[in-house]
Amino acid sequence: MSIPLTAWIGVDWGTSHMRAWAFDNDNHVIAQAASPRGMASLAPAEPDDPRKPERNPSPTNPFEQALMSLVSGWLPPTQTTPVVTCGMVGARQGWQEAPYVKTPCTPPILNQSIGVVSADSRLSVHILPGVAQDSPPEVMRGEETQIGGLLAKEPDFTGLVCLPGTHSKWVRIQPGGTITSLATYMTGELFRLLHHHSLLRFSTSKDGENAEAFAQGVHDGYSDSPDLTRLLFGIRAQQLLDDNPPNVASLSRLSGLLVGAELASGLRSRTDTKQIVIIGKLAPLYRQAFQEIGVATREVDSRTATCDGLIRVWRT
Amino acid sequence: MSIPLTAWIGVDWGTSHMRAWAFDNDNHVIAQAASPRGMASLAPAEPDDPRKPERNPSPTNPFEQALMSLVSGWLPPTQTTPVVTCGMVGARQGWQEAPYVKTPCTPPILNQSIGVVSADSRLSVHILPGVAQDSPPEVMRGEETQIGGLLAKEPDFTGLVCLPGTHSKWVRIQPGGTITSLATYMTGELFRLLHHHSLLRFSTSKDGENAEAFAQGVHDGYSDSPDLTRLLFGIRAQQLLDDNPPNVASLSRLSGLLVGAELASGLRSRTDTKQIVIIGKLAPLYRQAFQEIGVATREVDSRTATCDGLIRVWRT
Repeated sequence: MSIPLTAWIGVDWGTSHMRAWAFDNDNHVIAQAASPRGMASLAPAEPDDPRKPERNPSPTNPFEQALMSLVSGWLPPTQTTPVVTCGMVGARQGWQEAPYVKTPCTPPILNQSIGVVSADSRLSVHILPGVAQDSPPEVMRGEETQIGGLLAKEPDFTGLVCLPGTHSKWVRIQPGGTITSLATYMTGELFRLLHHHSLLRFSTSKDGENAEAFAQGVHDGYSDSPDLTRLLFGIRAQQLLDDNPPNVASLSRLSGLLVGAELASGLRSRTDTKQIVIIGKLAPLYRQAFQEIGVATREVDSRTATCDGLIRVWRT
Repeated sequence: MSIPLTAWIGVDWGTSHMRAWAFDNDNHVIAQAASPRGMASLAPAEPDDPRKPERNPSPTNPFEQALMSLVSGWLPPTQTTPVVTCGMVGARQGWQEAPYVKTPCTPPILNQSIGVVSADSRLSVHILPGVAQDSPPEVMRGEETQIGGLLAKEPDFTGLVCLPGTHSKWVRIQPGGTITSLATYMTGELFRLLHHHSLLRFSTSKDGENAEAFAQGVHDGYSDSPDLTRLLFGIRAQQLLDDNPPNVASLSRLSGLLVGAELASGLRSRTDTKQIVIIGKLAPLYRQAFQEIGVATREVDSRTATCDGLIRVWRT
């Protein structure tokens, strides 16, 4: 049996990580690799950093170097291999800017990508655009490819896709696989800031989980979302009044309040929403939160959605 | 004309600053001083700092040292001068803990304070308690003395007192000068964290004011307070879509959104509220925010309220 040849490569290239897969002619994954060389580690710091990324084709272009460090072993020596990339690599600070496609739209496909000239002639790099919404203003880069993956498997899907994370995305899909609206919540980033850098750091333990405190936090954050910043201070006040040391319940309540408030906003106008799909490594936490407020969800594996989405793009 | 003698001293001793006033027998201010030696700079870091504050009467007690550095020149040499203090100096991490008085209550008076034994026999230090609420959990230390000052001037006051700041306090006063409820919003702290440490730092200018963007932010934060964390991300998205550098409008919108959301929550149940008084150095900003949503307010000077409140305590 011969070793299958790499037909093309797909890359999910985010802010903090890059993940690459080699596909054969049947679009089966034959190799995979990951590195922490995300866009932020390769781009100049915003906004006024005098360093400019090397954008010309050059063996020293940091993006090409980072890519080659993952995929060079996969490249057939005498031919050009297409590389399809999605995510923050297409931001202004990325390898090359791939301007947003505006909603309403279907997830972008290959002929909407931009080509990047690389120094190594074995590469033919394509960067997919993200999706933006004019009003209210919204942007995403990368999640649209996962949504394309969901739609490749379920072309008739309509409903909400919730992609929890540092900046959680809620994407509404209407018939024809059309992305009609988009909302972003700073839930993960607020959790990190409040846990580590606010007054609440004196109340929250370093880590741990308290399911009951999380559930109560979800309930309160969902029911009283207009009072979010008051509820947050209440974590500190309760811990002082109870004369407790920093504790796991405070940490889980913080998480629950923020997720509950996100759910309250995300579900505000879901009258037409039949299905809610969660994609991402926080799916179990969010499933628990949705259950707490009596809303049924199902999950799609994040890696599967990304690979299916890259294959969908390659096939078009 | 002789130099008036110090009859007593009042101190507003917060987390980051201390302010002291010498009063004569007619309760007129005859001297004042301030220092950055707030509670946080004198207390051990929470929660598990092995350093313990020196609580015994000793010339090296850091609280007594900090106090003496401000007031020693005011002390008549051969007598004991009463010192009335309020604020975080009475927290567990402060000089000595003054346990909270619970709502409903009037602002604490002298016979509710705790006495601290000092090394210098010219001092007789009293620490006033803060006020706490059991449900929802709330605490304050210092603001209750300003409220006492307002009530000393206006004994029949009923309504809401808004004390904006790092942790904004909203205090409801009912007949008899009774504090019946208390709410804290982490508005100032969230502004600082989001401006300096979140993704939004790439969108906000270092400083500046844009009145129109602030007003629109207040309006949006007030109208759509359940969507606060989505509105926050929208600042970044708008700046990307407009292809703008970091700007003052983004900074003012951030401020406006947070203040607007605070107002939405604080005013939710104000059916019985005839008057709203703002106390604090952010009063002009908050007045503008209240005006934006059509709510009349008036202001009481922060220093005046504190001094009036300390005098009220001294007189009781």
